[in-house]
Amino acid sequence: MLIVGERINTFKKRVMRAYEEKDVEYIRGEALRQAEAGAQVIDVNAGSDIDVEPDNMMWAVEVIQEALDLPLCIDSPNPATIQAGFKACKDKQRAWANSITLEKERVDNILPLVREYQCPVVALCRDESGVAQSAADRVEVAKKIVNLLDQYGIALENLYLDPMIEPLSVRSDGGLMSLHTLEGLKKELPEIKTIISLSGISFGLPERKLLHRSFMPMLMYAGLDAVFLDPLDTLLMHSITAAEALLDQDEFCMSYITASREGKLTP
Amino acid sequence: MLIVGERINTFKKRVMRAYEEKDVEYIRGEALRQAEAGAQVIDVNAGSDIDVEPDNMMWAVEVIQEALDLPLCIDSPNPATIQAGFKACKDKQRAWANSITLEKERVDNILPLVREYQCPVVALCRDESGVAQSAADRVEVAKKIVNLLDQYGIALENLYLDPMIEPLSVRSDGGLMSLHTLEGLKKELPEIKTIISLSGISFGLPERKLLHRSFMPMLMYAGLDAVFLDPLDTLLMHSITAAEALLDQDEFCMSYITASREGKLTP
Repeated sequence: MLIVGERINTFKKRVMRAYEEKDVEYIRGEALRQAEAGAQVIDVNAGSDIDVEPDNMMWAVEVIQEALDLPLCIDSPNPATIQAGFKACKDKQRAWANSITLEKERVDNILPLVREYQCPVVALCRDESGVAQSAADRVEVAKKIVNLLDQYGIALENLYLDPMIEPLSVRSDGGLMSLHTLEGLKKELPEIKTIISLSGISFGLPERKLLHRSFMPMLMYAGLDAVFLDPLDTLLMHSITAAEALLDQDEFCMSYITASREGKLTP
Repeated sequence: MLIVGERINTFKKRVMRAYEEKDVEYIRGEALRQAEAGAQVIDVNAGSDIDVEPDNMMWAVEVIQEALDLPLCIDSPNPATIQAGFKACKDKQRAWANSITLEKERVDNILPLVREYQCPVVALCRDESGVAQSAADRVEVAKKIVNLLDQYGIALENLYLDPMIEPLSVRSDGGLMSLHTLEGLKKELPEIKTIISLSGISFGLPERKLLHRSFMPMLMYAGLDAVFLDPLDTLLMHSITAAEALLDQDEFCMSYITASREGKLTP
Protein backbone atom coordinates (compact mmCIF):
# COMPACT_ATOMS: atom_id res chain seq x y z
CA MET A 1 0.00 0.00 0.00
CA LEU A 2 1.36 3.36 -1.04
CA ILE A 3 0.82 5.89 1.75
CA VAL A 4 0.33 9.59 0.96
CA GLY A 5 0.48 11.67 4.15
CA GLU A 6 -2.50 14.05 4.27
CA ARG A 7 -1.68 16.21 7.29
CA ILE A 8 -0.48 19.35 5.50
CA ASN A 9 -3.99 20.43 4.59
CA THR A 10 -5.82 23.64 5.37
CA PHE A 11 -8.92 21.77 6.52
CA LYS A 12 -6.90 21.75 9.74
CA LYS A 13 -6.90 25.13 11.48
CA ARG A 14 -3.38 24.65 12.79
CA VAL A 15 -2.08 24.24 9.24
CA MET A 16 -4.02 27.28 8.06
CA ARG A 17 -2.35 29.31 10.83
CA ALA A 18 1.05 28.00 9.80
CA TYR A 19 0.46 29.35 6.29
CA GLU A 20 -0.67 32.73 7.64
CA GLU A 21 2.37 33.02 9.91
CA LYS A 22 4.77 31.39 7.45
CA ASP A 23 5.66 28.97 10.24
CA VAL A 24 8.53 27.04 8.66
CA GLU A 25 9.13 24.90 11.74
CA TYR A 26 5.58 23.63 11.87
CA ILE A 27 5.28 22.71 8.19
CA ARG A 28 8.70 21.10 8.16
CA GLY A 29 7.85 19.19 11.35
CA GLU A 30 4.60 17.88 9.91
CA ALA A 31 6.43 16.67 6.80
CA LEU A 32 9.18 14.94 8.80
CA ARG A 33 6.77 13.35 11.29
CA GLN A 34 4.75 11.85 8.45
CA ALA A 35 7.84 10.51 6.68
CA GLU A 36 9.05 8.98 9.94
CA ALA A 37 5.63 7.33 10.41
CA GLY A 38 5.69 5.69 6.98
CA ALA A 39 4.40 8.19 4.41
CA GLN A 40 6.00 7.61 0.99
CA VAL A 41 4.53 10.78 -0.56
CA ILE A 42 3.66 14.05 1.22
CA ASP A 43 0.44 15.79 0.16
CA VAL A 44 0.61 19.60 0.17
CA ASN A 45 -2.62 21.58 0.26
CA ALA A 46 -2.59 25.35 0.64
CA GLY A 47 -6.26 26.23 0.95
CA SER A 48 -8.79 27.54 -1.52
CA ASP A 49 -8.32 31.32 -1.41
CA ILE A 50 -7.06 31.84 -4.96
CA ASP A 51 -5.52 35.22 -4.03
CA VAL A 52 -2.93 33.67 -1.73
CA GLU A 53 -3.05 29.94 -2.48
CA PRO A 54 -0.48 29.78 -5.31
CA ASP A 55 2.09 31.73 -3.28
CA ASN A 56 1.42 29.67 -0.17
CA MET A 57 1.82 26.48 -2.21
CA MET A 58 5.18 27.60 -3.56
CA TRP A 59 6.34 28.53 -0.06
CA ALA A 60 5.29 25.18 1.40
CA VAL A 61 6.88 23.18 -1.41
CA GLU A 62 10.17 25.02 -0.86
CA VAL A 63 10.05 24.44 2.90
CA ILE A 64 9.25 20.74 2.61
CA GLN A 65 11.68 19.82 -0.14
CA GLU A 66 14.50 21.33 1.89
CA ALA A 67 13.56 19.13 4.83
CA LEU A 68 13.23 15.75 3.11
CA ASP A 69 13.61 13.86 -0.14
CA LEU A 70 10.14 12.43 -0.77
CA PRO A 71 7.78 13.07 -3.69
CA LEU A 72 5.28 15.86 -3.01
CA CYS A 73 1.64 15.67 -4.03
CA ILE A 74 0.51 19.13 -5.19
CA ASP A 75 -3.10 19.23 -4.02
CA SER A 76 -5.57 21.87 -5.16
CA PRO A 77 -8.85 22.26 -7.01
CA ASN A 78 -7.27 25.29 -8.74
CA PRO A 79 -5.09 24.55 -11.76
CA ALA A 80 -3.14 27.78 -11.15
CA THR A 81 -2.10 26.53 -7.72
CA ILE A 82 -0.99 23.17 -9.10
CA GLN A 83 1.07 24.98 -11.73
CA ALA A 84 2.63 27.16 -9.03
CA GLY A 85 3.44 24.09 -6.92
CA PHE A 86 5.16 22.37 -9.83
CA LYS A 87 7.09 25.53 -10.59
CA ALA A 88 8.57 25.41 -7.09
CA CYS A 89 9.33 21.67 -7.22
CA LYS A 90 12.97 20.77 -7.78
CA ASP A 91 12.07 17.28 -8.99
CA LYS A 92 9.01 17.72 -11.19
CA GLN A 93 9.02 14.14 -12.51
CA ARG A 94 8.39 12.80 -9.01
CA ALA A 95 5.74 15.36 -7.98
CA TRP A 96 2.08 14.37 -8.17
CA ALA A 97 -0.69 16.46 -9.72
CA ASN A 98 -3.75 16.21 -7.44
CA SER A 99 -6.27 16.29 -9.00
CA ILE A 100 -8.10 16.28 -12.29
CA THR A 101 -11.72 15.39 -13.09
CA LEU A 102 -13.54 15.39 -16.43
CA GLU A 103 -14.14 19.13 -15.90
CA LYS A 104 -12.72 21.03 -18.85
CA GLU A 105 -10.84 23.70 -16.89
CA ARG A 106 -8.89 21.14 -14.90
CA VAL A 107 -8.17 18.99 -17.93
CA ASP A 108 -6.96 21.85 -20.11
CA ASN A 109 -4.70 23.34 -17.47
CA ILE A 110 -3.28 20.29 -15.71
CA LEU A 111 -2.86 17.59 -18.36
CA PRO A 112 -0.24 19.52 -20.38
CA LEU A 113 1.88 19.68 -17.23
CA VAL A 114 1.39 15.95 -16.54
CA ARG A 115 2.38 15.19 -20.12
CA GLU A 116 5.45 17.39 -19.93
CA TYR A 117 6.80 15.89 -16.71
CA GLN A 118 5.39 12.34 -17.07
CA CYS A 119 4.46 12.63 -13.41
CA PRO A 120 1.76 10.79 -11.39
CA VAL A 121 -1.73 12.28 -11.56
CA VAL A 122 -4.81 11.68 -9.40
CA ALA A 123 -8.15 11.63 -11.23
CA LEU A 124 -11.44 11.81 -9.36
CA CYS A 125 -14.25 9.68 -10.85
CA ARG A 126 -16.54 12.62 -11.50
CA ASP A 127 -17.54 14.98 -14.28
CA GLU A 128 -19.15 18.42 -14.66
CA SER A 129 -22.38 17.13 -13.16
CA GLY A 130 -20.69 15.94 -9.96
CA VAL A 131 -20.22 12.46 -8.49
CA ALA A 132 -22.29 9.71 -10.11
CA GLN A 133 -24.78 8.03 -7.82
CA SER A 134 -23.99 4.46 -8.80
CA ALA A 135 -20.77 2.48 -8.86
CA ALA A 136 -21.32 1.49 -12.50
CA ASP A 137 -21.65 5.14 -13.54
CA ARG A 138 -18.46 6.08 -11.69
CA VAL A 139 -16.63 3.32 -13.59
CA GLU A 140 -17.98 4.80 -16.85
CA VAL A 141 -16.55 8.19 -15.87
CA ALA A 142 -13.24 6.46 -15.11
CA LYS A 143 -13.18 4.94 -18.60
CA LYS A 144 -13.67 8.38 -20.13
CA ILE A 145 -10.78 9.72 -18.04
CA VAL A 146 -8.55 6.82 -19.15
CA ASN A 147 -9.42 7.49 -22.81
CA LEU A 148 -8.73 11.19 -22.39
CA LEU A 149 -5.32 10.60 -20.84
CA ASP A 150 -4.51 8.07 -23.52
CA GLN A 151 -5.35 10.61 -26.23
CA TYR A 152 -3.13 13.15 -24.46
CA GLY A 153 -0.23 10.71 -24.66
CA ILE A 154 0.00 10.27 -20.90
CA ALA A 155 1.33 6.90 -19.70
CA LEU A 156 -1.50 5.14 -17.85
CA GLU A 157 0.95 3.79 -15.28
CA ASN A 158 1.05 7.35 -13.94
CA LEU A 159 -2.69 7.46 -13.32
CA TYR A 160 -4.35 6.95 -9.93
CA LEU A 161 -8.16 6.73 -10.10
CA ASP A 162 -10.11 7.87 -7.04
CA PRO A 163 -13.52 6.09 -6.76
CA MET A 164 -14.66 8.90 -4.39
CA ILE A 165 -16.01 8.59 -0.87
CA GLU A 166 -19.27 10.09 0.32
CA PRO A 167 -19.56 10.26 4.12
CA LEU A 168 -21.71 7.69 5.91
CA SER A 169 -23.40 10.64 7.60
CA VAL A 170 -24.62 11.83 4.17
CA ARG A 171 -25.56 8.47 2.67
CA SER A 172 -25.51 5.25 4.64
CA ASP A 173 -24.30 3.28 1.61
CA GLY A 174 -21.34 5.63 1.11
CA GLY A 175 -18.89 2.91 2.14
CA LEU A 176 -20.44 0.30 -0.14
CA MET A 177 -20.43 2.75 -3.05
CA SER A 178 -16.67 3.25 -2.74
CA LEU A 179 -16.05 -0.49 -2.35
CA HIS A 180 -18.23 -1.44 -5.32
CA THR A 181 -16.63 1.27 -7.47
CA LEU A 182 -13.17 -0.02 -6.56
CA GLU A 183 -14.19 -3.55 -7.52
CA GLY A 184 -15.63 -2.28 -10.79
CA LEU A 185 -12.44 -0.35 -11.58
CA LYS A 186 -10.27 -3.40 -10.90
CA LYS A 187 -12.52 -5.58 -13.05
CA GLU A 188 -12.84 -3.26 -16.03
CA LEU A 189 -9.56 -1.34 -15.87
CA PRO A 190 -7.27 -3.84 -14.13
CA GLU A 191 -4.05 -2.14 -15.25
CA ILE A 192 -4.95 1.21 -13.63
CA LYS A 193 -3.99 2.02 -10.05
CA THR A 194 -6.50 3.26 -7.46
CA ILE A 195 -6.31 5.76 -4.60
CA ILE A 196 -8.79 7.12 -2.06
CA SER A 197 -8.95 9.84 0.57
CA LEU A 198 -9.84 7.72 3.58
CA SER A 199 -11.05 10.31 6.06
CA GLY A 200 -13.98 11.30 3.83
CA ILE A 201 -15.94 8.30 5.09
CA SER A 202 -16.26 9.56 8.66
CA PHE A 203 -17.22 13.26 8.45
CA GLY A 204 -19.85 14.07 11.04
CA LEU A 205 -19.46 10.82 12.99
CA PRO A 206 -17.78 10.11 16.34
CA GLU A 207 -14.70 7.89 16.83
CA ARG A 208 -13.52 8.68 13.32
CA LYS A 209 -10.25 6.75 13.66
CA LEU A 210 -12.18 3.56 14.45
CA LEU A 211 -14.07 3.92 11.17
CA HIS A 212 -10.82 4.54 9.28
CA ARG A 213 -8.99 1.49 10.60
CA SER A 214 -12.05 -0.73 10.04
CA PHE A 215 -12.68 0.57 6.50
CA MET A 216 -9.08 0.28 5.34
CA PRO A 217 -8.91 -3.57 5.27
CA MET A 218 -12.12 -3.70 3.21
CA LEU A 219 -10.79 -1.12 0.74
CA MET A 220 -7.57 -3.09 0.38
CA TYR A 221 -9.50 -6.29 -0.29
CA ALA A 222 -11.63 -4.45 -2.87
CA GLY A 223 -8.50 -3.36 -4.78
CA LEU A 224 -7.02 -0.17 -3.32
CA ASP A 225 -3.39 0.53 -4.30
CA ALA A 226 -2.71 3.87 -2.60
CA VAL A 227 -4.34 6.06 0.06
CA PHE A 228 -4.39 9.56 1.49
CA LEU A 229 -4.39 9.25 5.28
CA ASP A 230 -2.85 10.46 8.52
CA PRO A 231 0.21 8.24 9.03
CA LEU A 232 0.44 9.41 12.65
CA ASP A 233 -2.69 7.34 13.35
CA THR A 234 -0.78 4.37 14.73
CA LEU A 235 -3.63 1.87 14.95
CA LEU A 236 -4.56 2.64 11.34
CA MET A 237 -1.00 2.02 10.16
CA HIS A 238 -0.99 -1.29 12.10
CA SER A 239 -4.22 -2.33 10.38
CA ILE A 240 -2.55 -1.79 6.99
CA THR A 241 0.45 -3.94 7.93
CA ALA A 242 -1.94 -6.66 9.12
CA ALA A 243 -4.16 -6.40 6.03
CA GLU A 244 -1.15 -6.80 3.74
CA ALA A 245 -0.32 -10.07 5.51
CA LEU A 246 -3.96 -11.19 5.40
CA LEU A 247 -4.23 -10.46 1.66
CA ASP A 248 -1.05 -12.36 0.74
CA GLN A 249 0.78 -9.14 -0.13
CA ASP A 250 3.54 -9.84 2.42
CA GLU A 251 5.55 -12.96 1.58
CA PHE A 252 5.70 -15.36 4.54
CA CYS A 253 4.32 -12.45 6.64
CA MET A 254 7.92 -11.27 6.91
CA SER A 255 7.14 -7.53 7.06
CA TYR A 256 4.45 -8.22 9.66
CA ILE A 257 6.71 -10.39 11.80
CA THR A 258 9.60 -7.92 11.49
CA ALA A 259 7.37 -5.00 12.49
CA SER A 260 6.20 -6.98 15.50
CA ARG A 261 9.76 -7.87 16.55
CA GLU A 262 10.72 -4.22 16.33
CA GLY A 263 7.83 -3.31 18.61
CA LYS A 264 6.08 -1.42 15.82
CA LEU A 265 2.72 -3.18 16.13
CA THR A 266 1.96 -2.41 19.76
CA PRO A 267 -0.53 0.44 20.32
CA MET B 1 -23.28 -9.97 12.99
CA LEU B 2 -24.17 -12.89 15.21
CA ILE B 3 -21.47 -13.35 17.87
CA VAL B 4 -20.73 -16.80 19.30
CA GLY B 5 -18.43 -16.53 22.32
CA GLU B 6 -15.55 -19.02 21.96
CA ARG B 7 -13.85 -18.75 25.35
CA ILE B 8 -15.14 -21.97 26.96
CA ASN B 9 -12.80 -24.15 24.96
CA THR B 10 -10.19 -26.62 26.16
CA PHE B 11 -7.57 -25.22 23.79
CA LYS B 12 -7.14 -22.87 26.75
CA LYS B 13 -5.30 -24.49 29.65
CA ARG B 14 -7.29 -22.52 32.22
CA VAL B 15 -10.54 -23.98 30.86
CA MET B 16 -9.08 -27.48 30.82
CA ARG B 17 -8.21 -27.07 34.52
CA ALA B 18 -11.72 -25.84 35.26
CA TYR B 19 -13.10 -29.06 33.81
CA GLU B 20 -10.65 -31.17 35.81
CA GLU B 21 -11.50 -29.38 39.05
CA LYS B 22 -15.20 -28.97 38.23
CA ASP B 23 -14.72 -25.25 38.88
CA VAL B 24 -18.31 -24.00 38.64
CA GLU B 25 -17.37 -20.38 39.40
CA TYR B 26 -14.88 -20.15 36.57
CA ILE B 27 -17.10 -21.67 33.86
CA ARG B 28 -20.10 -19.63 34.99
CA GLY B 29 -17.94 -16.47 35.07
CA GLU B 30 -16.65 -17.06 31.55
CA ALA B 31 -20.20 -17.49 30.29
CA LEU B 32 -21.47 -14.35 32.04
CA ARG B 33 -18.49 -12.23 30.98
CA GLN B 34 -19.01 -13.18 27.33
CA ALA B 35 -22.74 -12.45 27.48
CA GLU B 36 -22.03 -9.07 29.08
CA ALA B 37 -19.51 -8.32 26.29
CA GLY B 38 -22.04 -9.03 23.54
CA ALA B 39 -22.05 -12.77 22.83
CA GLN B 40 -25.48 -13.93 21.61
CA VAL B 41 -24.58 -17.64 21.73
CA ILE B 42 -22.10 -19.36 24.08
CA ASP B 43 -19.91 -22.07 22.56
CA VAL B 44 -19.17 -25.00 24.88
CA ASN B 45 -16.21 -27.24 24.12
CA ALA B 46 -15.15 -29.95 26.57
CA GLY B 47 -11.97 -31.31 25.02
CA SER B 48 -11.24 -34.37 22.92
CA ASP B 49 -10.69 -37.14 25.47
CA ILE B 50 -13.67 -39.29 24.63
CA ASP B 51 -13.52 -41.04 28.05
CA VAL B 52 -14.44 -37.90 29.95
CA GLU B 53 -15.65 -35.44 27.29
CA PRO B 54 -19.37 -36.37 27.22
CA ASP B 55 -19.63 -36.12 31.03
CA ASN B 56 -17.70 -32.85 31.09
CA MET B 57 -19.97 -31.46 28.36
CA MET B 58 -23.09 -32.33 30.35
CA TRP B 59 -21.62 -30.76 33.48
CA ALA B 60 -20.69 -27.53 31.65
CA VAL B 61 -24.08 -27.25 29.95
CA GLU B 62 -25.82 -27.58 33.31
CA VAL B 63 -23.57 -24.97 34.92
CA ILE B 64 -23.98 -22.44 32.12
CA GLN B 65 -27.72 -22.77 31.58
CA GLU B 66 -28.28 -22.12 35.28
CA ALA B 67 -26.27 -18.90 35.00
CA LEU B 68 -27.83 -17.36 31.90
CA ASP B 69 -30.52 -17.66 29.26
CA LEU B 70 -28.59 -17.74 25.99
CA PRO B 71 -28.44 -20.49 23.36
CA LEU B 72 -25.50 -22.86 23.83
CA CYS B 73 -23.40 -24.13 20.96
CA ILE B 74 -22.46 -27.77 21.66
CA ASP B 75 -18.99 -28.02 20.16
CA SER B 76 -17.21 -31.32 19.58
CA PRO B 77 -15.75 -33.47 16.82
CA ASN B 78 -17.32 -36.46 18.63
CA PRO B 79 -20.99 -37.14 17.91
CA ALA B 80 -21.37 -38.84 21.31
CA THR B 81 -20.36 -35.61 23.05
CA ILE B 82 -22.79 -33.54 21.02
CA GLN B 83 -25.55 -36.02 21.90
CA ALA B 84 -24.60 -35.77 25.59
CA GLY B 85 -24.62 -31.96 25.43
CA PHE B 86 -28.08 -31.91 23.90
CA LYS B 87 -29.30 -34.38 26.50
CA ALA B 88 -28.33 -31.89 29.21
CA CYS B 89 -29.83 -28.88 27.42
CA LYS B 90 -33.13 -27.64 28.80
CA ASP B 91 -33.97 -25.85 25.57
CA LYS B 92 -32.89 -28.20 22.79
CA GLN B 93 -34.52 -26.15 20.01
CA ARG B 94 -32.20 -23.22 20.71
CA ALA B 95 -29.00 -25.24 21.15
CA TRP B 96 -26.55 -25.43 18.25
CA ALA B 97 -24.93 -28.61 16.94
CA ASN B 98 -21.27 -27.79 16.16
CA SER B 99 -20.28 -29.35 13.83
CA ILE B 100 -20.90 -31.69 10.94
CA THR B 101 -18.85 -32.30 7.80
CA LEU B 102 -19.50 -34.68 4.90
CA GLU B 103 -17.88 -37.43 6.99
CA LYS B 104 -20.34 -40.28 7.38
CA GLU B 105 -19.95 -40.80 11.13
CA ARG B 106 -20.79 -37.19 11.90
CA VAL B 107 -23.68 -37.09 9.46
CA ASP B 108 -25.28 -40.31 10.68
CA ASN B 109 -25.06 -39.41 14.34
CA ILE B 110 -25.76 -35.69 14.39
CA LEU B 111 -28.29 -35.02 11.64
CA PRO B 112 -31.08 -37.08 13.26
CA LEU B 113 -30.72 -34.88 16.34
CA VAL B 114 -30.78 -31.70 14.25
CA ARG B 115 -33.89 -32.95 12.46
CA GLU B 116 -35.60 -33.84 15.73
CA TYR B 117 -35.01 -30.47 17.40
CA GLN B 118 -34.97 -28.25 14.29
CA CYS B 119 -31.96 -26.55 15.85
CA PRO B 120 -29.09 -24.59 14.23
CA VAL B 121 -26.21 -26.66 12.88
CA VAL B 122 -22.70 -25.65 11.82
CA ALA B 123 -21.28 -27.45 8.78
CA LEU B 124 -17.60 -27.28 7.88
CA CYS B 125 -16.86 -27.15 4.14
CA ARG B 126 -14.84 -30.35 4.10
CA ASP B 127 -15.26 -34.03 3.38
CA GLU B 128 -13.47 -37.29 4.20
CA SER B 129 -10.39 -36.19 2.29
CA GLY B 130 -10.00 -32.99 4.35
CA VAL B 131 -10.24 -29.32 3.41
CA ALA B 132 -10.30 -28.60 -0.33
CA GLN B 133 -7.39 -26.54 -1.61
CA SER B 134 -9.43 -24.15 -3.74
CA ALA B 135 -12.35 -21.88 -2.96
CA ALA B 136 -14.38 -23.37 -5.83
CA ASP B 137 -13.92 -26.89 -4.47
CA ARG B 138 -15.00 -25.80 -0.99
CA VAL B 139 -18.17 -24.33 -2.50
CA GLU B 140 -18.81 -27.69 -4.22
CA VAL B 141 -18.52 -29.44 -0.84
CA ALA B 142 -20.96 -26.88 0.57
CA LYS B 143 -23.48 -27.70 -2.16
CA LYS B 144 -23.27 -31.41 -1.26
CA ILE B 145 -23.88 -30.54 2.40
CA VAL B 146 -26.90 -28.43 1.46
CA ASN B 147 -28.34 -31.28 -0.64
CA LEU B 148 -27.75 -33.74 2.16
CA LEU B 149 -29.54 -31.60 4.73
CA ASP B 150 -32.36 -31.00 2.30
CA GLN B 151 -32.79 -34.75 1.81
CA TYR B 152 -32.82 -35.17 5.58
CA GLY B 153 -35.69 -32.71 5.82
CA ILE B 154 -33.68 -30.12 7.73
CA ALA B 155 -34.72 -26.48 7.21
CA LEU B 156 -31.85 -24.70 5.48
CA GLU B 157 -32.44 -21.57 7.55
CA ASN B 158 -30.89 -23.56 10.42
CA LEU B 159 -27.65 -24.15 8.54
CA TYR B 160 -24.43 -22.16 9.06
CA LEU B 161 -21.71 -22.99 6.52
CA ASP B 162 -18.10 -22.55 7.64
CA PRO B 163 -15.73 -21.80 4.69
CA MET B 164 -12.78 -22.87 6.91
CA ILE B 165 -9.69 -20.88 7.79
CA GLU B 166 -6.14 -22.11 7.32
CA PRO B 167 -3.57 -20.09 9.29
CA LEU B 168 -1.43 -17.55 7.44
CA SER B 169 1.56 -19.25 9.05
CA VAL B 170 0.66 -22.45 7.15
CA ARG B 171 -0.31 -20.93 3.81
CA SER B 172 0.10 -17.26 3.03
CA ASP B 173 -3.10 -17.22 0.97
CA GLY B 174 -5.10 -18.65 3.88
CA GLY B 175 -6.96 -15.37 4.34
CA LEU B 176 -7.78 -15.01 0.64
CA MET B 177 -8.99 -18.63 0.52
CA SER B 178 -11.55 -17.97 3.26
CA LEU B 179 -12.64 -14.68 1.66
CA HIS B 180 -13.02 -16.18 -1.81
CA THR B 181 -14.92 -19.18 -0.41
CA LEU B 182 -17.29 -16.83 1.44
CA GLU B 183 -17.91 -14.87 -1.76
CA GLY B 184 -18.52 -18.10 -3.66
CA LEU B 185 -20.98 -19.33 -1.01
CA LYS B 186 -22.91 -16.05 -1.10
CA LYS B 187 -23.01 -16.12 -4.89
CA GLU B 188 -24.04 -19.74 -5.35
CA LEU B 189 -26.00 -20.39 -2.15
CA PRO B 190 -27.26 -16.89 -1.27
CA GLU B 191 -29.98 -18.12 1.06
CA ILE B 192 -27.55 -20.00 3.34
CA LYS B 193 -25.91 -18.31 6.34
CA THR B 194 -22.15 -18.37 6.93
CA ILE B 195 -19.97 -18.60 10.04
CA ILE B 196 -16.23 -18.77 10.69
CA SER B 197 -13.88 -19.38 13.59
CA LEU B 198 -11.85 -16.19 13.43
CA SER B 199 -8.83 -17.04 15.55
CA GLY B 200 -7.75 -19.79 13.13
CA ILE B 201 -6.17 -17.17 10.87
CA SER B 202 -3.47 -16.14 13.33
CA PHE B 203 -2.01 -19.38 14.79
CA GLY B 204 1.75 -19.10 15.06
CA LEU B 205 1.90 -15.34 14.45
CA PRO B 206 2.49 -12.45 16.86
CA GLU B 207 -0.05 -9.72 17.69
CA ARG B 208 -2.91 -12.12 17.00
CA LYS B 209 -5.63 -9.66 18.04
CA LEU B 210 -4.41 -7.15 15.44
CA LEU B 211 -4.89 -9.78 12.72
CA HIS B 212 -8.36 -10.62 14.05
CA ARG B 213 -9.66 -7.05 14.09
CA SER B 214 -8.19 -6.35 10.64
CA PHE B 215 -9.56 -9.58 9.11
CA MET B 216 -13.06 -9.19 10.51
CA PRO B 217 -14.12 -6.19 8.33
CA MET B 218 -12.97 -8.03 5.19
CA LEU B 219 -14.89 -11.18 6.17
CA MET B 220 -18.01 -9.11 6.80
CA TYR B 221 -17.68 -7.45 3.40
CA ALA B 222 -17.22 -10.89 1.78
CA GLY B 223 -20.50 -12.11 3.28
CA LEU B 224 -20.01 -13.41 6.83
CA ASP B 225 -23.21 -13.68 8.93
CA ALA B 226 -21.91 -15.13 12.21
CA VAL B 227 -18.56 -15.67 13.91
CA PHE B 228 -16.84 -17.58 16.70
CA LEU B 229 -14.60 -15.14 18.57
CA ASP B 230 -13.52 -13.83 21.94
CA PRO B 231 -16.04 -11.09 22.79
CA LEU B 232 -13.74 -9.84 25.56
CA ASP B 233 -11.41 -8.54 22.83
CA THR B 234 -12.70 -4.99 23.00
CA LEU B 235 -10.99 -3.56 19.92
CA LEU B 236 -12.30 -6.49 17.87
CA MET B 237 -15.86 -5.86 19.04
CA HIS B 238 -15.44 -2.15 18.16
CA SER B 239 -14.29 -3.09 14.66
CA ILE B 240 -17.48 -5.11 14.16
CA THR B 241 -19.68 -2.20 15.25
CA ALA B 242 -17.79 0.07 12.85
CA ALA B 243 -17.91 -2.45 9.98
CA GLU B 244 -21.69 -2.78 10.34
CA ALA B 245 -22.00 1.00 9.90
CA LEU B 246 -19.55 0.96 6.97
CA LEU B 247 -21.46 -1.85 5.22
CA ASP B 248 -24.88 -0.17 5.56
CA GLN B 249 -26.06 -2.77 8.08
CA ASP B 250 -26.77 -0.10 10.72
CA GLU B 251 -29.52 2.31 9.67
CA PHE B 252 -28.38 5.93 9.96
CA CYS B 253 -25.38 4.57 11.95
CA MET B 254 -27.68 4.63 14.98
CA SER B 255 -26.13 1.63 16.75
CA TYR B 256 -22.67 3.07 16.11
CA ILE B 257 -23.59 6.52 17.39
CA THR B 258 -25.39 5.09 20.42
CA ALA B 259 -22.42 2.88 21.30
CA SER B 260 -20.16 5.91 21.04
CA ARG B 261 -22.43 8.05 23.26
CA GLU B 262 -22.45 5.28 25.86
CA GLY B 263 -18.66 5.24 25.86
CA LYS B 264 -18.58 1.74 24.39
CA LEU B 265 -16.25 2.52 21.48
CA THR B 266 -13.29 3.86 23.43
CA PRO B 267 -10.41 1.40 23.87
